[in-house]
Amino acid sequence: MSGWVAVAGLGPGDERLVTEEVRAALAEATDVVGYIPYVARVTPREGLTLHPSDNRVEIDRANHALDMADKGRRVVVVSSGDPGVFAMASALFEALEARAAPNLVDIRILPGITAMLAAAARLGAPLGHDFCVINLSDNLKPWELIEHRLRLAAQAGFAMAFYNPRSSSRPHQFARALDILRLECGNERLISFARAVTTPEERLLTVSLGEATPEMADMRTVVIVGNADTRRVGRFVYTPRSAR
Amino acid sequence: MSGWVAVAGLGPGDERLVTEEVRAALAEATDVVGYIPYVARVTPREGLTLHPSDNRVEIDRANHALDMADKGRRVVVVSSGDPGVFAMASALFEALEARAAPNLVDIRILPGITAMLAAAARLGAPLGHDFCVINLSDNLKPWELIEHRLRLAAQAGFAMAFYNPRSSSRPHQFARALDILRLECGNERLISFARAVTTPEERLLTVSLGEATPEMADMRTVVIVGNADTRRVGRFVYTPRSAR
Repeated sequence: MSGWVAVAGLGPGDERLVTEEVRAALAEATDVVGYIPYVARVTPREGLTLHPSDNRVEIDRANHALDMADKGRRVVVVSSGDPGVFAMASALFEALEARAAPNLVDIRILPGITAMLAAAARLGAPLGHDFCVINLSDNLKPWELIEHRLRLAAQAGFAMAFYNPRSSSRPHQFARALDILRLECGNERLISFARAVTTPEERLLTVSLGEATPEMADMRTVVIVGNADTRRVGRFVYTPRSAR
Repeated sequence: MSGWVAVAGLGPGDERLVTEEVRAALAEATDVVGYIPYVARVTPREGLTLHPSDNRVEIDRANHALDMADKGRRVVVVSSGDPGVFAMASALFEALEARAAPNLVDIRILPGITAMLAAAARLGAPLGHDFCVINLSDNLKPWELIEHRLRLAAQAGFAMAFYNPRSSSRPHQFARALDILRLECGNERLISFARAVTTPEERLLTVSLGEATPEMADMRTVVIVGNADTRRVGRFVYTPRSAR
């Protein structure tokens, strides 16, 4: 009786973007844990127990998964997108590290299509040159650090992908981020808002930084800011491979 | 007779990481174009013409795909990993933009598991906090710009993923990159070399920057440098979600 934990990425929403590797893990699992809307994407079946939990209990969820695996259960922790990008993989290792007697049960991380890749694909190729990826939520880091990173990323000439750009509990911060970007990158720089990509609620919008407003983003939106060379071709936005 | 082009990511190598969306496009295609080793991953069948081409002819390949689609062919341009990350998607839009009469045939970009996500998953979760992604090849940008980006990325506290870290034509440059990283991040910072992930040739190695040597990377290696908080837990490497 040998338990395991797989932390699996379900991709951005479209079921055709779930990998076979993840499907196989779900087919072998006895238990699935995760945030309510992600667990809801798993088809129930005999012998599979679903354990949906609320947001912001990542460490509890990770410990629950590790406890069950210690008892011989086969546990899939589901994330949307990729589990290694602002999702459950780091939380699992944090929980494992904090345990008095860390049992290195069989742990696997199963990659998925993270939101920025799906968003970039729907938009064209805005991440076709060097880029950076920033979680704009200040739940787990000081806001000042986010501002510092925005400035340096602009000065480095990176395109940028932002996760969790805006929530109702901190509506002013994304407005502040846009102000910093306008100062550093100028009003003409392109910014794309990709909401709920690959789902029926998908909405894509590309404007200049001068035209951008905070209301264009919500927590289901990935925001992509181009570099100085990013431009439109037809309905697409792309960043050339070369830079001067 | 309506042609189309799909630029598709085949993922890092393991066939279980190819999405159903990409499989469906390949099943409908009349033609597949791409770099020789990527086209070799497509199963031949009646009615499908394979057009393998050499490296560094990306724009020719993109024009070939667009020409065939204009004539009503259904063309898949294959990339490894994700087509939008240092791969064929940007080249396609560059070719489209340069055409005298750009015909916006039906163009779709189909995302895939890019190498850094697969590498991060195999290593643990080294990209669990803000990070940047840099192509270390100076084929399409000046080396000085790469050095500038390395310094600012370190000063921003980003974890870093490097594509194309080293080639035989420029062996000294990756040594120079390691020197810059040691200066900016210190000798204790963790660096991981993930070669040919998810293939039979996979090789994973994590050392400190002080221990790192240029020979640890080749062109099939993705290199991931942690941030100041990146650490080991058991055989894994992970970056905590929080920062001070």
